[in-house]
Amino acid sequence: MDENQELEERFAQLLQDLRENNLQEFRNSFLEMHIYEQGQFYQSLNEEDRQLIYSYLSPKELADMFDVIEEDNEYMKEYLAEMRPSYAAEMLSEMYTDNAVDLLNTLDKKQVAKYLSLMTTDDASEIKELLHYEDETAGAIMTTEFVSIVANQTVRSAMYVLKNEADVAETIYYIYVVNQEEQLVGVISLRDLIVNDDDAMISDLMSERVLSVHVGDDQEDVAQTFRDYDFLALPVTDYDDHLLGIVTVDDIIDVIDDEAASDYSGLAGVNVEEINENPVKSAARRLPWLITLLFLGMSTASLISHYEELVSEASILAVFISLITGTAGNAGTQSLAVAVRRLAVSDDKDAGFVRLILAEVLTGLVTGAITGLTIFLIVGIWKHNFILGFVIGIAMLFAITVANLAGSLIPMLMDRLGFDPAVASGPFITTLSDLTSVLIYFNIASLFMGYFM
Amino acid sequence: MDENQELEERFAQLLQDLRENNLQEFRNSFLEMHIYEQGQFYQSLNEEDRQLIYSYLSPKELADMFDVIEEDNEYMKEYLAEMRPSYAAEMLSEMYTDNAVDLLNTLDKKQVAKYLSLMTTDDASEIKELLHYEDETAGAIMTTEFVSIVANQTVRSAMYVLKNEADVAETIYYIYVVNQEEQLVGVISLRDLIVNDDDAMISDLMSERVLSVHVGDDQEDVAQTFRDYDFLALPVTDYDDHLLGIVTVDDIIDVIDDEAASDYSGLAGVNVEEINENPVKSAARRLPWLITLLFLGMSTASLISHYEELVSEASILAVFISLITGTAGNAGTQSLAVAVRRLAVSDDKDAGFVRLILAEVLTGLVTGAITGLTIFLIVGIWKHNFILGFVIGIAMLFAITVANLAGSLIPMLMDRLGFDPAVASGPFITTLSDLTSVLIYFNIASLFMGYFM
Repeated sequence: MDENQELEERFAQLLQDLRENNLQEFRNSFLEMHIYEQGQFYQSLNEEDRQLIYSYLSPKELADMFDVIEEDNEYMKEYLAEMRPSYAAEMLSEMYTDNAVDLLNTLDKKQVAKYLSLMTTDDASEIKELLHYEDETAGAIMTTEFVSIVANQTVRSAMYVLKNEADVAETIYYIYVVNQEEQLVGVISLRDLIVNDDDAMISDLMSERVLSVHVGDDQEDVAQTFRDYDFLALPVTDYDDHLLGIVTVDDIIDVIDDEAASDYSGLAGVNVEEINENPVKSAARRLPWLITLLFLGMSTASLISHYEELVSEASILAVFISLITGTAGNAGTQSLAVAVRRLAVSDDKDAGFVRLILAEVLTGLVTGAITGLTIFLIVGIWKHNFILGFVIGIAMLFAITVANLAGSLIPMLMDRLGFDPAVASGPFITTLSDLTSVLIYFNIASLFMGYFM
Repeated sequence: MDENQELEERFAQLLQDLRENNLQEFRNSFLEMHIYEQGQFYQSLNEEDRQLIYSYLSPKELADMFDVIEEDNEYMKEYLAEMRPSYAAEMLSEMYTDNAVDLLNTLDKKQVAKYLSLMTTDDASEIKELLHYEDETAGAIMTTEFVSIVANQTVRSAMYVLKNEADVAETIYYIYVVNQEEQLVGVISLRDLIVNDDDAMISDLMSERVLSVHVGDDQEDVAQTFRDYDFLALPVTDYDDHLLGIVTVDDIIDVIDDEAASDYSGLAGVNVEEINENPVKSAARRLPWLITLLFLGMSTASLISHYEELVSEASILAVFISLITGTAGNAGTQSLAVAVRRLAVSDDKDAGFVRLILAEVLTGLVTGAITGLTIFLIVGIWKHNFILGFVIGIAMLFAITVANLAGSLIPMLMDRLGFDPAVASGPFITTLSDLTSVLIYFNIASLFMGYFM
């Protein structure tokens, strides 16, 4: 609470300095803030005030802040557009390359070309190199600002290299050792440099079993390696072990967040990142799924329509439609979530295919049997009709088993076919299981029609 | 593929060395592997072979490996139990305190007391200090192995402190500056130490605006600070700014993973971490939810039962029950997911309460109107009955709007009441919305009964 108030007062003072042209006061107190707070302040301004910022701060000073605020920010395009192009281009070249590339990837090609043409050849070519890596690969999230040295030198000379590169490198806590062909041959941490003697040779200290990821590796696999090994950074190499860049842990946290949000979105059948939009826009995003599922739901309706005569004879059947479809849908959603999660964490995806499906079907039989028995007793007692209870119970058993089968089979198949299994949404499974549940229910009811009426 | 094969061969060789008592060969090749791989090897062994490990490796050597494999590992208890108690106690004291505490928290109190009694007083008291912090707070995930210095010294002498503590500290990349009362007054990164002159004073270089978290802060809030500021570690303080410990980024990755899994589990109404269990155990975990929802579903059934006469007169009504409940359930799940996500990422939760609910209801009206219009046309044309279409369409509009209201209101209320909104599961919302949808549907149908029959 107090901290928030302090920050607000600070922001108010900053705004006053900015508007009253107190250049030096503004710069002093702005630059002493953490860059994340600088970003908070910058983003609270209107365009007029932001224009003052562009004249008070150098592109380099703005770049530090942009490095932190760039992720998932829909206004970045506007910010860039309102700067003088040469200022924007200089700021982009001062940013860490991976962040600049993320930002450029949101612009259209013409604008990217314009900014690149305004940079020095070196900066532009560094960015161009990264721009062509496929989305969601190690190449797309890596940065080229790493420290590399050769093995044949002392700790002292390595520390000298480090001091010179510390200003531009994204991390200096791992130093990568390369040979003359720029191939990765070892790694040494800054911790090791510090505890060892200044005259020790890097070749004696470095670890030669250096773990790296391939530039084309999926970002999720890279994140898994970070989780397993607790690294702060990982080197990225090409097919021939040339060191191309590094991935740092802050980018991995973004990857993990994005993947979690997309799994969650998939399960709910809605993009949960659609925050702070107006209701019409929200509706526009959700309707495609809802209408698609409506048509799938229509097949269930037309199926029931086939049994309309049965229902008019035994209207009691209508009472349990939503109970059976609902319960089977709940069970199917559980299976779906377990299957998607298992696919996400398992290393050897193929081995478990049949076993997982079988386990889910067996789980369905057990849950179905117990749920079915429960509803058999409830309906039998409530309606004084144990044959009707038997029909509902058996239908429940089969509907749950089939829902579990669908809930596990569909994401597994999607994974096999190369799609992300997480987009197999819960609503899709429940709507599909409505159809199978109704089919099972009315068929069983027809069979026993003579007995419970 | 190749890497896996290489690792397998290495493991086979290791196992041979282990069993044939080639102590030196085994130690050399085991200790040169990354600790994560050491863990993979260790976990592939049977108890007999693991007993050999305990005689070949020192508690300190085993501790390094245990620091990496400890998380989410159900076998850790067994491993500890099979070691000699004094060996286990020594290994626990050699582990980073936060990891040792995590491990001890899974044991029963008697065992914890036994291990603590076998440690040196210093080690035991460090662990005891952390053991009493509440689960899922900064205190529970912090470690006490950090580097702290006083401000009144040069970079040279600070580097000297660092060299001495580098071996035991969990990170040496941030150095915290404290005053004589052990209160946190500043921070300096190793990067700053390295680029600055050896004779520069820490007090001149350190940043005094040091961000810290409170020992009782929720781990999710700590994770959010890491995301915002891209830190590798954060200091943890008590009410009076005394430095108690640090939280490191590798623990934050575990927190983010756990929170994502629990949000996902909540939405699906099943614990998705229940992997590799047998079907009966899986069923036992899923049944409580399913049976609870079955009883909620029974209220829907008994509601329909009230309208049985209506259905026997107009059996066509039964055709659309699952379509209306299903579509409203889908819409409610979307609202739920958006609301839970918004609660998770928003900093100021109270401000948006009414606005969010209103936005969701408006979104429901828009999606409901369009979905309703669609179904009006479909039913009108299919059944040559536009009045029936009108009834279904209007019911759809209201059912979706109410589902959106429930989907957003329930998690918001849970959050207000201090519960985790993420446990408001999708299945619960869909089952609840079945009830409201049926109520809306049959009431509207009764009203227009005379017109569409």
